Amino acid sequence: MKYLRYLLILIPVSIVFEFMHLSPTLVFVTSALAIIPLAGLMGEATEEISVYSGPRIGGFLNATFGNATELIIAFFALKEGLFEVVKASIVGSVIGNILLVLGASMIFGGCKFKTQSFNKKAVEVSSSMLLFSVIGLSIPAIFTHTVKVDLLTSKYESLSIAVALIMFLIYILGLYFSFFTHKDIYGSEHKGEVQSKWSLKKSILVLIIATLCIAIESEFLVGSVEAMTKAIGFSSFFVGIIIIPIIGNAAEHSTAVIMALKNKMDVAVEIAIGSSLQIILFVAPILIFLSLLFKPMSIIFNEFELVALIVSVIIANRVASDGESNWLEGVQLIAVYIIIAICFLIL
Amino acid sequence: MKYLRYLLILIPVSIVFEFMHLSPTLVFVTSALAIIPLAGLMGEATEEISVYSGPRIGGFLNATFGNATELIIAFFALKEGLFEVVKASIVGSVIGNILLVLGASMIFGGCKFKTQSFNKKAVEVSSSMLLFSVIGLSIPAIFTHTVKVDLLTSKYESLSIAVALIMFLIYILGLYFSFFTHKDIYGSEHKGEVQSKWSLKKSILVLIIATLCIAIESEFLVGSVEAMTKAIGFSSFFVGIIIIPIIGNAAEHSTAVIMALKNKMDVAVEIAIGSSLQIILFVAPILIFLSLLFKPMSIIFNEFELVALIVSVIIANRVASDGESNWLEGVQLIAVYIIIAICFLIL
Amino acid sequence: MKYLRYLLILIPVSIVFEFMHLSPTLVFVTSALAIIPLAGLMGEATEEISVYSGPRIGGFLNATFGNATELIIAFFALKEGLFEVVKASIVGSVIGNILLVLGASMIFGGCKFKTQSFNKKAVEVSSSMLLFSVIGLSIPAIFTHTVKVDLLTSKYESLSIAVALIMFLIYILGLYFSFFTHKDIYGSEHKGEVQSKWSLKKSILVLIIATLCIAIESEFLVGSVEAMTKAIGFSSFFVGIIIIPIIGNAAEHSTAVIMALKNKMDVAVEIAIGSSLQIILFVAPILIFLSLLFKPMSIIFNEFELVALIVSVIIANRVASDGESNWLEGVQLIAVYIIIAICFLIL
Repeated sequence: MKYLRYLLILIPVSIVFEFMHLSPTLVFVTSALAIIPLAGLMGEATEEISVYSGPRIGGFLNATFGNATELIIAFFALKEGLFEVVKASIVGSVIGNILLVLGASMIFGGCKFKTQSFNKKAVEVSSSMLLFSVIGLSIPAIFTHTVKVDLLTSKYESLSIAVALIMFLIYILGLYFSFFTHKDIYGSEHKGEVQSKWSLKKSILVLIIATLCIAIESEFLVGSVEAMTKAIGFSSFFVGIIIIPIIGNAAEHSTAVIMALKNKMDVAVEIAIGSSLQIILFVAPILIFLSLLFKPMSIIFNEFELVALIVSVIIANRVASDGESNWLEGVQLIAVYIIIAICFLIL
Repeated sequence: MKYLRYLLILIPVSIVFEFMHLSPTLVFVTSALAIIPLAGLMGEATEEISVYSGPRIGGFLNATFGNATELIIAFFALKEGLFEVVKASIVGSVIGNILLVLGASMIFGGCKFKTQSFNKKAVEVSSSMLLFSVIGLSIPAIFTHTVKVDLLTSKYESLSIAVALIMFLIYILGLYFSFFTHKDIYGSEHKGEVQSKWSLKKSILVLIIATLCIAIESEFLVGSVEAMTKAIGFSSFFVGIIIIPIIGNAAEHSTAVIMALKNKMDVAVEIAIGSSLQIILFVAPILIFLSLLFKPMSIIFNEFELVALIVSVIIANRVASDGESNWLEGVQLIAVYIIIAICFLIL
Repeated sequence: MKYLRYLLILIPVSIVFEFMHLSPTLVFVTSALAIIPLAGLMGEATEEISVYSGPRIGGFLNATFGNATELIIAFFALKEGLFEVVKASIVGSVIGNILLVLGASMIFGGCKFKTQSFNKKAVEVSSSMLLFSVIGLSIPAIFTHTVKVDLLTSKYESLSIAVALIMFLIYILGLYFSFFTHKDIYGSEHKGEVQSKWSLKKSILVLIIATLCIAIESEFLVGSVEAMTKAIGFSSFFVGIIIIPIIGNAAEHSTAVIMALKNKMDVAVEIAIGSSLQIILFVAPILIFLSLLFKPMSIIFNEFELVALIVSVIIANRVASDGESNWLEGVQLIAVYIIIAICFLIL
């Protein structure tokens, strides 16, 4: 984890590459790698601030900033009108969290500990919320693909905005649920033991600088996607669904694996499922709203994205209802991810 | 609940409107509202009769008359050849029970009690039966939509009748299961405590009169559907899937919410899931059989009805396997219902 | 079970019929019935050998020879280029095991014992592995049916081989899991109590002879399929998905029912789910690899096969998560199977 810091050197490198108009592939790779430690720093700064702000505001900050990287990258893709990339990256974040992050955690943790168990009750709230959210998000798309009526574009837009509003409302109610009416369900494990490493001032400064740098690098990244995909031969869809989410989720990814290695499987599972949930209930609606500033983006996913979403949710619920994990389960999650990735690659 | 009785005044009103050939919308609204207290009265009368008849026949009466209102409305729609409305109302009853009735019960109950728990074992028999039934009911439709061969109409009819026979057989075996071989699974909570309010004679009289009035009002309702949908702009599909089931299930709806408010979540969940089960295993086959009197109706649901059915069943099983409910879960069920309703509205 | 031995007389009968060029229907029926006791003998011989070889090699032999009959029949169908029959028989084995074998076990067992319970933990490993495997196997097919791009045939072949390799790797890792890292999960119930009936030499001899006879009869069976289907009017798809799997699984079928009658529901459930798992992770990949010797077979199932697979997996997981069975559950499984079979019959 600490070694990732060295990647920060790629910030100036990517800036130089961008302004010297070097190959888009080089710009893409350097800015992508630079984002990884920045996302880590942003996460750390948020954690630090929450030590000072108390658990309630801290929890809210963590919930909101947890997917800030994905949100910033998607924002620039939205501005460029790359709707397919934006939607693919929403789906890719969900499947990346459920299949890749959770699978890797189970393999690493499972190689060290024979069977790792976690509290089913705590995970079930998130996993069942994920189920309902994905169903809600999928219905307009299933409706569109099956009913095959030519609707006016304006109707799709209203439908997308209505669904986004409902999703966002559930997000707010979910925060109210977890911070007010049912705050006891969520573990108080972290309480008391946290010591601040940084001063509040330093934390806020790091948060602001990291966010700004992520914004710059995201602009480079998105700007080079199209030229890069042409040069390498990947589809932009593959970049959206596999590569961008891996970059955006790298921080959660390493945290989850570390937790699994410490046999804190509860935390690893909660990171993976909770992060997917935030993508659907917070990032996706916000992107729909933001798209109104440029050109309205519909919430209609394509058929394969739907399948990927539904598969992830079924697996997440199966895993959660189990209450136990082992290396073989992890291997199976990664195998499903690889098969999905191969399909997108040959598209 | 008691206040609903005042709606009985709409029976003569709707009769006057019908015979004065007033606007079909007015006839639709008055007859729809008149059915609500009538369905409640029919339910009460059945309960009363079962006090006299003993638990076994009483249970059978309740199981059979529980969805009599839906059956009567659907019968008149069938007679008019409104097959789309009939099939939509079957699906709408299932999603209305699982998403709307259960969701409302969880919200009302969850605002009064933090977490409401129910006996998983008892609910699991119904929820797993619902899963198998919906799968059985969906297979011919999935088969038809995917295999895209032009079959002779007579083959569809035989397929529909075969499936209906199998469903009905499972209904009979299910009654045998719950009243003979496994009657102990089903709670004996209601035993002994019930006092008759009405004499047996009065109960039977109320049952007959309520059934007759429902039949009359249903004929008005169905007769005005087409003209009303043209006047208002709703699709007849929307009326079938959203409005008619709300009317037909109003009685169950209020009972379930009242039970949830009394923290008897077992009963509320059982009403919602059990009622869906009866729609699929009893009402749907009976309607297929009855349609042979007029023009055979196929059991093939359209793609979106299938999705709605499958979604409801997945959610019902998720909820049942949980064994607990809270207000946020209720909100999510209602949110899925609203999204489905919006989709049908803009169709 | 013993009485099935008399069917061995059909071996010479089928040979005579074949070489006298009698009606293909007669050849099909006699060779099909002859395979049933042969498959039983092969299973018994494998059991005997495993008494001598010790549990580890014995377990491996059982796992590998368990579906040898299906594999041999499918091999000859592959050689004849009957890809549709091969793929249908893979799917048919899975649905036959989950719906028919498990359903029959529950009905027979449930008529003798009111409620039969089994160890959820042991069954959950297989049922969740089945879920992941079917998802992995379905993704390329769903991808192909939804994305509707015309891909080069060579791409489909590479995709099929890649998926087959991943499946086979998981099979190997699964054996490693069950024989090395987690061998304690799997019951040690059979340990110690087994006595050898036959000498090692006799067992090996029986195994070899039975395998050879199955190979001969399978060649007759497959050779007569096309002419027989034309004569009788069944589609070859129906033969592949319903009839061949019933023949190939007859041995497992009777063992599972016998175990259920002895109230060993764990074993019955494990046979049904474990056998399905082996079909997907071992038989299907091996067939893909073997097809490279003749003409590459793709792993792309048609839509209805997908639905049948997914339905079976959902039901297997529902049953496993329950931990209990009764006759009504068995009736429902068989009802789903019958509805699927009727659909294939009228195709």
